[in-house]
Amino acid sequence: MESKPKVIANISNRHVHLAPAELEKLFGPGYKLTKTKDLMQPGEHACDETVKIKGPKGEIDKVRVLGPLRKATQVEISMGDSIRIGAVAPVRSSGDVKGSAPVTMIGPKGTVDLAEGLIVAKRHVHMTPADAAVFGVKDNDTVSIRCGGPRGLVFNNVTARVSDKMALECHLDIEEANAAGVRNGDLVEIV
Amino acid sequence: MESKPKVIANISNRHVHLAPAELEKLFGPGYKLTKTKDLMQPGEHACDETVKIKGPKGEIDKVRVLGPLRKATQVEISMGDSIRIGAVAPVRSSGDVKGSAPVTMIGPKGTVDLAEGLIVAKRHVHMTPADAAVFGVKDNDTVSIRCGGPRGLVFNNVTARVSDKMALECHLDIEEANAAGVRNGDLVEIV
Repeated sequence: MESKPKVIANISNRHVHLAPAELEKLFGPGYKLTKTKDLMQPGEHACDETVKIKGPKGEIDKVRVLGPLRKATQVEISMGDSIRIGAVAPVRSSGDVKGSAPVTMIGPKGTVDLAEGLIVAKRHVHMTPADAAVFGVKDNDTVSIRCGGPRGLVFNNVTARVSDKMALECHLDIEEANAAGVRNGDLVEIV
Repeated sequence: MESKPKVIANISNRHVHLAPAELEKLFGPGYKLTKTKDLMQPGEHACDETVKIKGPKGEIDKVRVLGPLRKATQVEISMGDSIRIGAVAPVRSSGDVKGSAPVTMIGPKGTVDLAEGLIVAKRHVHMTPADAAVFGVKDNDTVSIRCGGPRGLVFNNVTARVSDKMALECHLDIEEANAAGVRNGDLVEIV
Protein backbone atom coordinates (compact mmCIF):
# COMPACT_ATOMS: atom_id res chain seq x y z
CA MET A 1 0.00 0.00 0.00
CA GLU A 2 2.70 2.46 1.05
CA SER A 3 4.70 3.03 -2.08
CA LYS A 4 5.33 6.76 -1.88
CA PRO A 5 8.93 7.84 -1.48
CA LYS A 6 10.26 8.73 1.92
CA VAL A 7 11.60 12.22 2.49
CA ILE A 8 14.99 13.25 3.84
CA ALA A 9 14.71 15.46 6.90
CA ASN A 10 17.35 18.02 7.63
CA ILE A 11 17.65 20.31 10.61
CA SER A 12 17.81 24.09 10.30
CA ASN A 13 19.74 25.83 13.01
CA ARG A 14 19.17 29.56 13.51
CA HIS A 15 20.34 31.52 10.46
CA VAL A 16 20.16 34.78 8.54
CA HIS A 17 19.35 35.58 4.91
CA LEU A 18 20.73 38.96 3.85
CA ALA A 19 19.68 41.50 1.24
CA PRO A 20 22.49 43.48 -0.44
CA ALA A 21 21.91 46.63 1.67
CA GLU A 22 22.19 44.78 4.99
CA LEU A 23 25.21 42.78 3.78
CA GLU A 24 27.10 46.02 3.18
CA LYS A 25 26.01 47.58 6.47
CA LEU A 26 27.14 44.53 8.44
CA PHE A 27 30.28 43.54 6.53
CA GLY A 28 31.32 46.69 4.65
CA PRO A 29 30.92 48.15 1.13
CA GLY A 30 31.42 45.70 -1.73
CA TYR A 31 31.67 42.71 0.60
CA LYS A 32 31.18 39.26 -0.92
CA LEU A 33 30.01 36.25 1.12
CA THR A 34 32.26 33.19 1.29
CA LYS A 35 30.49 29.92 0.54
CA THR A 36 31.52 27.07 2.84
CA LYS A 37 28.97 24.35 2.12
CA ASP A 38 26.24 23.63 -0.38
CA LEU A 39 22.87 22.82 1.15
CA MET A 40 20.45 20.28 -0.25
CA GLN A 41 18.21 22.88 -1.88
CA PRO A 42 19.80 23.76 -5.25
CA GLY A 43 21.73 27.04 -5.15
CA GLU A 44 21.47 27.43 -1.37
CA HIS A 45 24.61 27.40 0.72
CA ALA A 46 26.05 28.11 4.13
CA CYS A 47 28.59 30.91 4.40
CA ASP A 48 31.67 31.45 6.50
CA GLU A 49 30.11 34.65 7.87
CA THR A 50 28.09 34.94 11.06
CA VAL A 51 26.37 37.82 12.82
CA LYS A 52 25.25 38.48 16.35
CA ILE A 53 21.53 38.99 16.84
CA LYS A 54 20.06 40.97 19.71
CA GLY A 55 16.57 41.19 21.15
CA PRO A 56 15.07 43.07 24.09
CA LYS A 57 16.40 40.63 26.69
CA GLY A 58 19.42 38.95 25.21
CA GLU A 59 21.66 38.21 22.29
CA ILE A 60 22.95 35.20 20.40
CA ASP A 61 26.38 35.13 18.87
CA LYS A 62 27.52 33.40 15.68
CA VAL A 63 24.25 33.13 13.79
CA ARG A 64 25.16 31.65 10.42
CA VAL A 65 24.58 33.60 7.20
CA LEU A 66 23.11 31.56 4.34
CA GLY A 67 23.49 32.48 0.69
CA PRO A 68 22.71 33.56 -1.90
CA LEU A 69 21.55 37.12 -1.16
CA ARG A 70 17.81 37.73 -1.09
CA LYS A 71 15.52 40.66 -1.73
CA ALA A 72 14.61 40.99 1.95
CA THR A 73 16.69 40.30 5.02
CA GLN A 74 15.26 37.65 7.31
CA VAL A 75 16.40 36.06 10.58
CA GLU A 76 15.15 32.55 11.41
CA ILE A 77 15.38 31.32 15.00
CA SER A 78 13.76 28.67 17.17
CA MET A 79 10.99 29.38 19.64
CA GLY A 80 13.51 28.76 22.41
CA ASP A 81 15.88 31.33 20.87
CA SER A 82 13.00 33.79 20.67
CA ILE A 83 12.24 33.41 24.38
CA ARG A 84 15.96 33.64 25.18
CA ILE A 85 16.37 37.05 23.52
CA GLY A 86 12.98 38.32 24.69
CA ALA A 87 11.50 38.56 21.21
CA VAL A 88 8.00 37.62 20.09
CA ALA A 89 8.87 36.03 16.77
CA PRO A 90 5.86 34.65 14.90
CA VAL A 91 5.82 31.21 13.25
CA ARG A 92 6.00 32.06 9.54
CA SER A 93 6.99 30.60 6.23
CA SER A 94 10.28 31.86 4.84
CA GLY A 95 9.70 35.13 2.96
CA ASP A 96 6.51 35.97 4.88
CA VAL A 97 8.04 38.66 7.08
CA LYS A 98 5.44 41.45 6.93
CA GLY A 99 4.59 42.42 10.50
CA SER A 100 7.08 39.93 11.96
CA ALA A 101 9.30 40.83 14.90
CA PRO A 102 12.09 43.44 14.97
CA VAL A 103 15.66 42.37 15.64
CA THR A 104 19.12 43.93 15.75
CA MET A 105 21.98 42.34 13.79
CA ILE A 106 25.58 43.13 14.63
CA GLY A 107 28.35 42.45 12.13
CA PRO A 108 32.07 43.22 12.06
CA LYS A 109 31.56 46.55 10.26
CA GLY A 110 28.18 47.74 11.49
CA THR A 111 24.78 47.23 13.04
CA VAL A 112 21.37 46.87 11.44
CA ASP A 113 18.10 47.47 13.28
CA LEU A 114 15.52 45.52 11.33
CA ALA A 115 11.98 46.78 11.91
CA GLU A 116 10.69 43.35 10.88
CA GLY A 117 12.19 40.09 9.63
CA LEU A 118 12.59 37.93 12.73
CA ILE A 119 10.57 34.71 12.45
CA VAL A 120 10.38 31.17 13.76
CA ALA A 121 10.39 29.13 10.56
CA LYS A 122 7.21 27.20 9.89
CA ARG A 123 8.15 23.59 9.26
CA HIS A 124 7.93 22.69 5.62
CA VAL A 125 8.77 20.18 2.97
CA HIS A 126 10.39 21.25 -0.29
CA MET A 127 9.59 19.31 -3.44
CA THR A 128 9.55 19.47 -7.22
CA PRO A 129 6.29 19.56 -9.21
CA ALA A 130 6.94 15.90 -10.07
CA ASP A 131 7.19 15.04 -6.36
CA ALA A 132 4.05 17.06 -5.69
CA ALA A 133 2.16 15.01 -8.28
CA VAL A 134 3.26 11.79 -6.57
CA PHE A 135 2.12 13.06 -3.17
CA GLY A 136 -1.05 14.65 -4.56
CA VAL A 137 -0.31 18.11 -3.20
CA LYS A 138 0.23 21.58 -4.59
CA ASP A 139 2.34 24.54 -3.49
CA ASN A 140 1.39 25.85 -0.05
CA ASP A 141 -0.79 22.87 0.79
CA THR A 142 -0.57 21.61 4.32
CA VAL A 143 0.62 18.05 4.89
CA SER A 144 1.50 15.91 7.87
CA ILE A 145 4.90 14.31 8.38
CA ARG A 146 5.41 11.12 10.37
CA CYS A 147 8.72 10.56 12.14
CA GLY A 148 9.45 7.11 13.55
CA GLY A 149 11.62 5.90 16.41
CA PRO A 150 11.42 6.19 20.18
CA ARG A 151 10.35 9.84 20.02
CA GLY A 152 8.09 9.23 17.03
CA LEU A 153 5.39 11.78 16.27
CA VAL A 154 3.29 13.18 13.45
CA PHE A 155 3.83 16.84 12.64
CA ASN A 156 0.62 18.44 11.36
CA ASN A 157 0.57 21.82 9.62
CA VAL A 158 3.66 21.23 7.52
CA THR A 159 3.71 23.47 4.45
CA ALA A 160 4.47 21.95 1.05
CA ARG A 161 6.75 24.23 -0.96
CA VAL A 162 6.71 23.22 -4.59
CA SER A 163 9.09 24.53 -7.24
CA ASP A 164 11.13 23.11 -10.07
CA LYS A 165 14.13 24.76 -8.36
CA MET A 166 13.70 22.63 -5.25
CA ALA A 167 14.67 19.15 -4.08
CA LEU A 168 12.61 16.79 -1.93
CA GLU A 169 13.56 17.65 1.64
CA CYS A 170 11.80 18.29 4.95
CA HIS A 171 13.10 21.16 7.08
CA LEU A 172 12.65 21.08 10.84
CA ASP A 173 14.16 23.40 13.39
CA ILE A 174 16.35 22.04 16.19
CA GLU A 175 13.58 21.91 18.76
CA GLU A 176 11.25 20.11 16.37
CA ALA A 177 14.00 17.66 15.45
CA ASN A 178 14.93 17.02 19.11
CA ALA A 179 11.27 16.59 20.05
CA ALA A 180 11.01 13.93 17.35
CA GLY A 181 14.47 12.42 17.89
CA VAL A 182 15.25 13.23 14.25
CA ARG A 183 18.82 13.62 13.06
CA ASN A 184 20.10 15.12 9.84
CA GLY A 185 19.37 12.81 6.94
CA ASP A 186 16.75 10.70 8.67
CA LEU A 187 13.87 9.57 6.50
CA VAL A 188 10.34 10.71 7.30
CA GLU A 189 6.99 10.10 5.62
CA ILE A 190 4.35 12.39 4.23
CA VAL A 191 1.04 11.00 5.55
CA MET B 1 -18.08 10.82 19.97
CA GLU B 2 -15.26 12.63 21.70
CA SER B 3 -16.36 12.81 25.30
CA LYS B 4 -13.13 11.98 27.07
CA PRO B 5 -11.62 14.69 29.24
CA LYS B 6 -8.84 16.84 27.91
CA VAL B 7 -5.51 16.82 29.69
CA ILE B 8 -3.55 19.77 31.05
CA ALA B 9 -0.04 19.94 29.58
CA ASN B 10 2.77 21.43 31.60
CA ILE B 11 6.35 22.01 30.56
CA SER B 12 9.30 20.55 32.43
CA ASN B 13 12.46 22.59 32.29
CA ARG B 14 15.72 20.86 33.16
CA HIS B 15 15.78 19.80 36.81
CA VAL B 16 17.38 17.60 39.44
CA HIS B 17 15.91 15.10 41.93
CA LEU B 18 18.26 14.48 44.86
CA ALA B 19 18.79 11.55 47.21
CA PRO B 20 19.78 12.39 50.79
CA ALA B 21 23.47 11.56 50.26
CA GLU B 22 23.85 13.88 47.26
CA LEU B 23 21.85 16.64 48.98
CA GLU B 24 24.39 16.68 51.82
CA LYS B 25 27.39 16.54 49.50
CA LEU B 26 26.11 19.48 47.45
CA PHE B 27 24.57 21.67 50.16
CA GLY B 28 26.22 20.50 53.40
CA PRO B 29 25.42 18.15 56.31
CA GLY B 30 21.87 18.34 57.63
CA TYR B 31 20.74 20.67 54.85
CA LYS B 32 16.98 20.98 54.25
CA LEU B 33 15.54 22.03 50.89
CA THR B 34 13.35 25.16 50.76
CA LYS B 35 10.05 24.67 48.94
CA THR B 36 9.10 27.57 46.69
CA LYS B 37 6.18 26.26 44.66
CA ASP B 38 3.89 23.24 44.65
CA LEU B 39 3.72 21.42 41.33
CA MET B 40 0.58 19.85 39.94
CA GLN B 41 1.56 16.30 40.92
CA PRO B 42 0.59 15.87 44.60
CA GLY B 43 3.55 16.21 46.95
CA GLU B 44 5.96 17.42 44.25
CA HIS B 45 7.42 20.89 44.53
CA ALA B 46 10.07 23.22 43.16
CA CYS B 47 12.81 24.32 45.54
CA ASP B 48 14.77 27.49 45.95
CA GLU B 49 17.99 25.56 45.44
CA THR B 50 19.79 25.10 42.12
CA VAL B 51 22.96 23.29 41.10
CA LYS B 52 25.35 23.55 38.20
CA ILE B 53 25.63 20.50 35.98
CA LYS B 54 28.69 19.70 33.92
CA GLY B 55 29.29 17.35 31.01
CA PRO B 56 32.31 16.59 28.83
CA LYS B 57 31.89 19.73 26.70
CA GLY B 58 30.02 22.27 28.76
CA GLU B 59 28.04 23.17 31.80
CA ILE B 60 24.63 24.62 32.64
CA ASP B 61 24.12 26.85 35.63
CA LYS B 62 21.05 27.12 37.85
CA VAL B 63 19.41 23.78 37.26
CA ARG B 64 16.40 23.70 39.59
CA VAL B 65 16.15 21.13 42.38
CA LEU B 66 12.71 19.54 42.77
CA GLY B 67 11.46 17.98 46.01
CA PRO B 68 10.83 15.84 47.89
CA LEU B 69 14.04 13.81 48.16
CA ARG B 70 14.15 10.52 46.26
CA LYS B 71 15.97 7.23 46.68
CA ALA B 72 18.20 7.86 43.65
CA THR B 73 19.58 11.11 42.31
CA GLN B 74 18.51 11.93 38.77
CA VAL B 75 19.15 14.85 36.40
CA GLU B 76 16.60 15.51 33.65
CA ILE B 77 17.61 17.68 30.69
CA SER B 78 16.45 18.28 27.14
CA MET B 79 18.12 16.75 24.11
CA GLY B 80 19.43 20.21 23.25
CA ASP B 81 20.95 20.52 26.74
CA SER B 82 22.54 17.10 26.30
CA ILE B 83 24.21 18.15 23.06
CA ARG B 84 25.27 21.46 24.65
CA ILE B 85 27.18 19.77 27.48
CA GLY B 86 28.49 16.98 25.28
CA ALA B 87 26.60 14.23 27.06
CA VAL B 88 24.83 11.26 25.52
CA ALA B 89 21.76 11.22 27.74
CA PRO B 90 19.24 8.51 26.82
CA VAL B 91 15.50 9.12 26.57
CA ARG B 92 14.16 7.40 29.68
CA SER B 93 11.19 7.43 32.02
CA SER B 94 11.83 9.06 35.37
CA GLY B 95 13.39 6.54 37.75
CA ASP B 96 14.82 4.38 34.95
CA VAL B 97 18.42 5.49 35.34
CA LYS B 98 20.32 2.20 35.16
CA GLY B 99 23.03 2.59 32.52
CA SER B 100 22.09 6.22 31.80
CA ALA B 101 24.72 8.92 31.32
CA PRO B 102 27.20 10.21 33.89
CA VAL B 103 27.10 13.85 34.96
CA THR B 104 28.81 16.14 37.45
CA MET B 105 26.73 18.29 39.80
CA ILE B 106 28.25 21.29 41.54
CA GLY B 107 26.58 22.81 44.59
CA PRO B 108 27.59 25.54 47.05
CA LYS B 109 29.27 23.07 49.42
CA GLY B 110 30.56 20.34 47.17
CA THR B 111 30.64 18.39 43.94
CA VAL B 112 29.08 15.07 43.03
CA ASP B 113 30.23 12.90 40.14
CA LEU B 114 27.26 10.71 39.29
CA ALA B 115 28.23 7.55 37.41
CA GLU B 116 24.69 7.42 36.01
CA GLY B 117 21.47 9.42 36.41
CA LEU B 118 21.48 11.87 33.50
CA ILE B 119 18.44 11.35 31.25
CA VAL B 120 16.24 13.10 28.72
CA ALA B 121 12.78 12.58 30.19
CA LYS B 122 10.46 10.45 28.08
CA ARG B 123 7.25 12.37 27.57
CA HIS B 124 4.44 11.03 29.71
CA VAL B 125 1.00 11.59 31.06
CA HIS B 126 0.24 11.15 34.75
CA MET B 127 -3.19 9.94 35.77
CA THR B 128 -5.18 8.28 38.53
CA PRO B 129 -6.58 4.75 38.18
CA ALA B 130 -10.00 6.37 37.66
CA ASP B 131 -8.61 8.44 34.76
CA ALA B 132 -6.91 5.34 33.37
CA ALA B 133 -10.26 3.52 33.32
CA VAL B 134 -11.82 6.39 31.38
CA PHE B 135 -9.02 6.34 28.82
CA GLY B 136 -8.83 2.55 28.70
CA VAL B 137 -5.14 2.38 29.57
CA LYS B 138 -2.99 0.89 32.32
CA ASP B 139 0.28 1.93 33.92
CA ASN B 140 3.19 2.06 31.44
CA ASP B 141 0.96 1.77 28.40
CA THR B 142 1.92 3.92 25.45
CA VAL B 143 -0.57 6.51 24.24
CA SER B 144 -0.57 9.32 21.69
CA ILE B 145 -1.24 12.94 22.56
CA ARG B 146 -2.71 15.43 20.10
CA CYS B 147 -1.81 19.10 20.44
CA GLY B 148 -3.78 21.64 18.41
CA GLY B 149 -2.92 25.08 17.08
CA PRO B 150 -0.60 26.37 14.36
CA ARG B 151 2.20 23.98 15.39
CA GLY B 152 -0.23 21.14 16.04
CA LEU B 153 1.14 17.60 16.13
CA VAL B 154 0.50 14.15 17.54
CA PHE B 155 3.12 12.84 19.95
CA ASN B 156 3.37 9.05 19.74
CA ASN B 157 5.17 6.96 22.35
CA VAL B 158 3.85 8.87 25.35
CA THR B 159 3.98 6.76 28.52
CA ALA B 160 0.92 6.57 30.77
CA ARG B 161 1.94 6.72 34.43
CA VAL B 162 -0.94 5.58 36.60
CA SER B 163 -1.08 5.94 40.38
CA ASP B 164 -3.60 7.01 42.97
CA LYS B 165 -0.98 9.51 44.10
CA MET B 166 -1.02 11.29 40.72
CA ALA B 167 -3.13 13.93 39.00
CA LEU B 168 -4.10 14.03 35.32
CA GLU B 169 -1.30 15.97 33.63
CA CYS B 170 0.88 15.64 30.53
CA HIS B 171 4.57 16.47 30.92
CA LEU B 172 6.55 17.70 27.92
CA ASP B 173 10.05 19.11 27.91
CA ILE B 174 10.74 22.58 26.54
CA GLU B 175 11.77 21.41 23.08
CA GLU B 176 8.70 19.21 22.75
CA ALA B 177 6.47 22.05 23.94
CA ASN B 178 8.07 24.57 21.57
CA ALA B 179 7.86 22.13 18.67
CA ALA B 180 4.13 21.84 19.36
CA GLY B 181 3.58 25.49 20.29
CA VAL B 182 2.28 24.30 23.67
CA ARG B 183 2.32 26.59 26.68
CA ASN B 184 1.91 25.72 30.34
CA GLY B 185 -1.70 24.83 31.08
CA ASP B 186 -2.75 24.20 27.48
CA LEU B 187 -5.21 21.38 26.98
CA VAL B 188 -4.20 18.38 24.90
CA GLU B 189 -6.01 15.15 23.99
CA ILE B 190 -5.19 11.49 24.45
CA VAL B 191 -5.93 9.89 21.07
